[in-house]
Amino acid sequence: MVAVAIVGATGYAGVEAFRLLAGHPGARATYLASHSQAGQTIGSVHVHLGPFGEMRMGPPDPDAIASSAEVALLSLPARQSLDLAPELLRRGVRIVDFGGDFRLKDEAAYARYYGGAHTAPEWLRRAVYGLTEFHRDEIASADLVANPGCYPTAALFALRPAVAAGAVATDDLIVDAKSGVTGAGRQPSQATHYAEADDNVWPYKLAGEHRHTPEIEQELALAAGSPVAATFSPHQVPMSRGLLATCYARLRRPWTTAEAMACYREAYAAEPFVQVLEEGLPSTKATLGTNCVQVAVRVDARVGRLIAVAAIDNLGKGAAGQAVQNVNRMFGLQEGAGLPRIGLMP
Amino acid sequence: MVAVAIVGATGYAGVEAFRLLAGHPGARATYLASHSQAGQTIGSVHVHLGPFGEMRMGPPDPDAIASSAEVALLSLPARQSLDLAPELLRRGVRIVDFGGDFRLKDEAAYARYYGGAHTAPEWLRRAVYGLTEFHRDEIASADLVANPGCYPTAALFALRPAVAAGAVATDDLIVDAKSGVTGAGRQPSQATHYAEADDNVWPYKLAGEHRHTPEIEQELALAAGSPVAATFSPHQVPMSRGLLATCYARLRRPWTTAEAMACYREAYAAEPFVQVLEEGLPSTKATLGTNCVQVAVRVDARVGRLIAVAAIDNLGKGAAGQAVQNVNRMFGLQEGAGLPRIGLMP
Amino acid sequence: MVAVAIVGATGYAGVEAFRLLAGHPGARATYLASHSQAGQTIGSVHVHLGPFGEMRMGPPDPDAIASSAEVALLSLPARQSLDLAPELLRRGVRIVDFGGDFRLKDEAAYARYYGGAHTAPEWLRRAVYGLTEFHRDEIASADLVANPGCYPTAALFALRPAVAAGAVATDDLIVDAKSGVTGAGRQPSQATHYAEADDNVWPYKLAGEHRHTPEIEQELALAAGSPVAATFSPHQVPMSRGLLATCYARLRRPWTTAEAMACYREAYAAEPFVQVLEEGLPSTKATLGTNCVQVAVRVDARVGRLIAVAAIDNLGKGAAGQAVQNVNRMFGLQEGAGLPRIGLMP
Amino acid sequence: MVAVAIVGATGYAGVEAFRLLAGHPGARATYLASHSQAGQTIGSVHVHLGPFGEMRMGPPDPDAIASSAEVALLSLPARQSLDLAPELLRRGVRIVDFGGDFRLKDEAAYARYYGGAHTAPEWLRRAVYGLTEFHRDEIASADLVANPGCYPTAALFALRPAVAAGAVATDDLIVDAKSGVTGAGRQPSQATHYAEADDNVWPYKLAGEHRHTPEIEQELALAAGSPVAATFSPHQVPMSRGLLATCYARLRRPWTTAEAMACYREAYAAEPFVQVLEEGLPSTKATLGTNCVQVAVRVDARVGRLIAVAAIDNLGKGAAGQAVQNVNRMFGLQEGAGLPRIGLMP
Repeated sequence: MVAVAIVGATGYAGVEAFRLLAGHPGARATYLASHSQAGQTIGSVHVHLGPFGEMRMGPPDPDAIASSAEVALLSLPARQSLDLAPELLRRGVRIVDFGGDFRLKDEAAYARYYGGAHTAPEWLRRAVYGLTEFHRDEIASADLVANPGCYPTAALFALRPAVAAGAVATDDLIVDAKSGVTGAGRQPSQATHYAEADDNVWPYKLAGEHRHTPEIEQELALAAGSPVAATFSPHQVPMSRGLLATCYARLRRPWTTAEAMACYREAYAAEPFVQVLEEGLPSTKATLGTNCVQVAVRVDARVGRLIAVAAIDNLGKGAAGQAVQNVNRMFGLQEGAGLPRIGLMP
Repeated sequence: MVAVAIVGATGYAGVEAFRLLAGHPGARATYLASHSQAGQTIGSVHVHLGPFGEMRMGPPDPDAIASSAEVALLSLPARQSLDLAPELLRRGVRIVDFGGDFRLKDEAAYARYYGGAHTAPEWLRRAVYGLTEFHRDEIASADLVANPGCYPTAALFALRPAVAAGAVATDDLIVDAKSGVTGAGRQPSQATHYAEADDNVWPYKLAGEHRHTPEIEQELALAAGSPVAATFSPHQVPMSRGLLATCYARLRRPWTTAEAMACYREAYAAEPFVQVLEEGLPSTKATLGTNCVQVAVRVDARVGRLIAVAAIDNLGKGAAGQAVQNVNRMFGLQEGAGLPRIGLMP
Repeated sequence: MVAVAIVGATGYAGVEAFRLLAGHPGARATYLASHSQAGQTIGSVHVHLGPFGEMRMGPPDPDAIASSAEVALLSLPARQSLDLAPELLRRGVRIVDFGGDFRLKDEAAYARYYGGAHTAPEWLRRAVYGLTEFHRDEIASADLVANPGCYPTAALFALRPAVAAGAVATDDLIVDAKSGVTGAGRQPSQATHYAEADDNVWPYKLAGEHRHTPEIEQELALAAGSPVAATFSPHQVPMSRGLLATCYARLRRPWTTAEAMACYREAYAAEPFVQVLEEGLPSTKATLGTNCVQVAVRVDARVGRLIAVAAIDNLGKGAAGQAVQNVNRMFGLQEGAGLPRIGLMP
Repeated sequence: MVAVAIVGATGYAGVEAFRLLAGHPGARATYLASHSQAGQTIGSVHVHLGPFGEMRMGPPDPDAIASSAEVALLSLPARQSLDLAPELLRRGVRIVDFGGDFRLKDEAAYARYYGGAHTAPEWLRRAVYGLTEFHRDEIASADLVANPGCYPTAALFALRPAVAAGAVATDDLIVDAKSGVTGAGRQPSQATHYAEADDNVWPYKLAGEHRHTPEIEQELALAAGSPVAATFSPHQVPMSRGLLATCYARLRRPWTTAEAMACYREAYAAEPFVQVLEEGLPSTKATLGTNCVQVAVRVDARVGRLIAVAAIDNLGKGAAGQAVQNVNRMFGLQEGAGLPRIGLMP
């Protein structure tokens, strides 16, 4: 059994990782860390865990973690992994970092979007972007995996095959994404207050303000072999979980919907967690509680544009499910071990 | 008091019109028509109307309507106004048609999107597109007003000033819209079943399939003075009411967010129902129950793109509120009479 | 025009009062007070107010309030009206207090439920319980009106006619109430976080713990002419607004549903805001945005029990609507002035 | 592997059973039957099943079922199991019936509540009520298990220990229950239309009208050893899944909350799916997607009443989870096999 630490265990991504590990045949949570609630059981915070909640949380202490776990899932606010990850790596603990501290290869972009210079640039260079389907081999041997952001995950599944095929212009991409409220984290705020979020939808951080913008561009540039520019528009939608990205790209050459579908079908033919829809269109609830992605493409021939849509559970494939998939790769387990495939629908 | 008939009074747009007229100082509902529930009171279908619900509904009979009302609001399925509207107009009853039968000036487009040839083309030519803010004068003297679709309403408020200013390319517009479930009407279906719509978001009728596509293009072309092509992507979002359109347009020349805002501020300076946000971004709940529109613009300078957002209540400014505003214009009442301006927030 | 101050204007009840006064023909908000946001406009906090939001808020200073207003609506946390209300009353400002500081005539009960002794007992004695339908005459001449709690409002409308008729035992009442999330106020918390409140229902403060328990008992005892004991069980339900109370009472004598209905119909015959349903049962959304109450009764003859149900909008009849109705009474305006009667359904 | 047929596979309870069996180590779905969609794959109806959806559905033909399965889960409208169950039993197929056709031992009650005489009374006598925790041994050897209704499941977990202990009067029980919308089934209707169910709560079938009333009484009478009378009040609450029962009972003798808790703790000490809460109160989302029950009790000493609360997922412990637990018992598998224990929270 792979011994896993969860640092930031009480957050929504942390407790989802805990849930997945509780049903995992080859890995288990051996250490839970919380800054503010060390000393308490996880069940005192998350009552629904019942008998599974009796495990007591400790501090995010590198020695304590290293003595209990082979790999640590870090679910922390921005910039908090900069110190902890190197400490753990030095002690031989491999890392899957849920945050953005090791995702952007461009240090200047990191500094601009994350509030200051990167303080562990050597680790930034060694970190592997943890979208398993696109970095499968590097992840297997990585010590430090930067788990993708939830929005980039959906955007990449929607756009990457078309970009990789050279079918679309890459200076003109648009990602219009709709996320459930858990995307904002567990900390209460006006924007997550039920009475304000309910029966309401709004955009935020438009026009390149959101941190996930350079992340989307970086990973699509890898597929394109050249720089990519994207307009990214996140929206909050009244649901707890779920994330849908509707993406727009100008076609470089005439393409039919059937040709686009064939391209996507082939790109994901071997991927057990990716469902390319022939009929119908993705819906977030179809992925609820799973590590799955639903993808569909359409060509708007009148205007020469590709519309590509992907839906995920932002806490599943968009966070904890993806992390467990990465752990599976890193430790030679079956890649799908412990990962639900059928959504809680309805 | 202007005497108003509501044909299709039990539908969601119909009963919202009834609600607005019940509080209107210069107009009142004098005839309610229902195909399936004629003979019953409206309160037997909509219990929440209480003592206001005692009015009995009649059949959609032109003579009966003409003997009771000066103007009829038609809230009917597609193609059902083709016969009824001319019958009423012939009898001197002016019309505000909530449906799409008299919106598209291009008969071929109508035939393609509405399942067959238009059977009243002479009336189609005389009909006025009923977005008051953009057709104010023609509406005042119109006999037949084609009330806009909910999606085009939001899209036009978002895009029209930029298009009219010549600031954006018009062959490359995108409207990514998110609508509450009432947009699908009152008839129950799998897609509107609570258990499937709740905590779920999905796109539908992508790539030009939706009827509102040519409507958006037609009205923006009027502002542009040249043809317009738009990709329109509707989404269902888990809320009862509300519609947000996030629109994307390529800039023809460099423009800053401040310049764009100034353009929009000026365009809507005299409009009491349009709020151009300086800070913050539109949210649908801010317009709940009102005839208001929230608009905001941003320039994504890195990619030379305008992002324009508008939020409305799809049953307010997107249907019944707009209709009442048109009635006010048509009968010389104060344009804002009977129209709520402060949303039910939270 | 009656000049009204709203103290605690940014809270949910405060801003709902502001909305109602904005459409009121005989009263208007002349002073807005906020502890934490004095100096800002109300529109900076509640963007949806648009042009109506330009009014600037001041501090909750008695002199400032007294120089601007004849009556003050106090929407404050518990115990904060104890000082402010007497200061205002001394200056000739009449009061409608949204909180619980002047509702309980029994000082010992106040001390137990509100965390300490009452510090203005003379005003407590003079205060009038502000459920207009049951204290209409006293309210007209009152200087200090204690606006009822949202739960007691629904419970009283459900149970009072049966209690007043002597039809039910009063030592054995049960109020099982379901409230929307605005009942918990605007301050964000874990319990109001969308992700935890969504798709979830739970009880809280059972078995007499909730402050509204003695309030329900006090007002029913007035109707009964003898002490009353009630079990009160509040629940949080995933909706923004709305409150439904399902109440249970043991019949003292055989009563049919028809007899019970007749009793309720008669009790509320003259009440424009109360709808006694003959068929169907109350639903909260039927009252959304209004000052209305829906009531229904059934007799479970097998067990000799009355089931009485009432639905309100907790921010309408349960708070701001009720307050405006009281202001109307206090200043000789038409009792229903400025109060919506048709709910925003759907 | 136990071979299981699901008859009525496309309904919400049917597809939840399919989901659970897909992850079950000792049982699998070998035949899916649908009246209206035989011939199609289950994935054509439930797209979210992805590659698991390729199984084709057949008709509800007894021979076809018997040739493929050892046990059939019948998820059918009322009265439709009356014929099919005996046909299958005759062919040696054991049954777990999700509907109410074999739950009520009293044929007169069945006739009254289910629209006509029972046509297989001999099987009614042999049927075992399938609440595993209370009929564990009989289920092991039963051929025909009547899976409990969702409301009775929650009510029984809430009330049974107190009734069995003789602590409460049994002529005066109240079950006030709040259910998510899936409880109404997959067939669309006005009451399940998103726009009407959203942000709304209402009671229905009060005062003994609901079919689950005699079922609750029957099973509590078994625990009491004497007849039981209960008032049962179901409510629809805006959530997809989840059911909370708040139950009220008059104490026969003084009991403290601590004593009541001790009684419940002991009653459920050996039950892995039942969590008796010491602090806090049940919430439905804590059980989402699981076979778990949360229970809590409080004594309202002032009025001598027990308040007992239970929360379940109505499609989990209230339907499909319970059914799988019964299959596990019937075929000697580990009772918890294939049943999730940690809810999808948030």
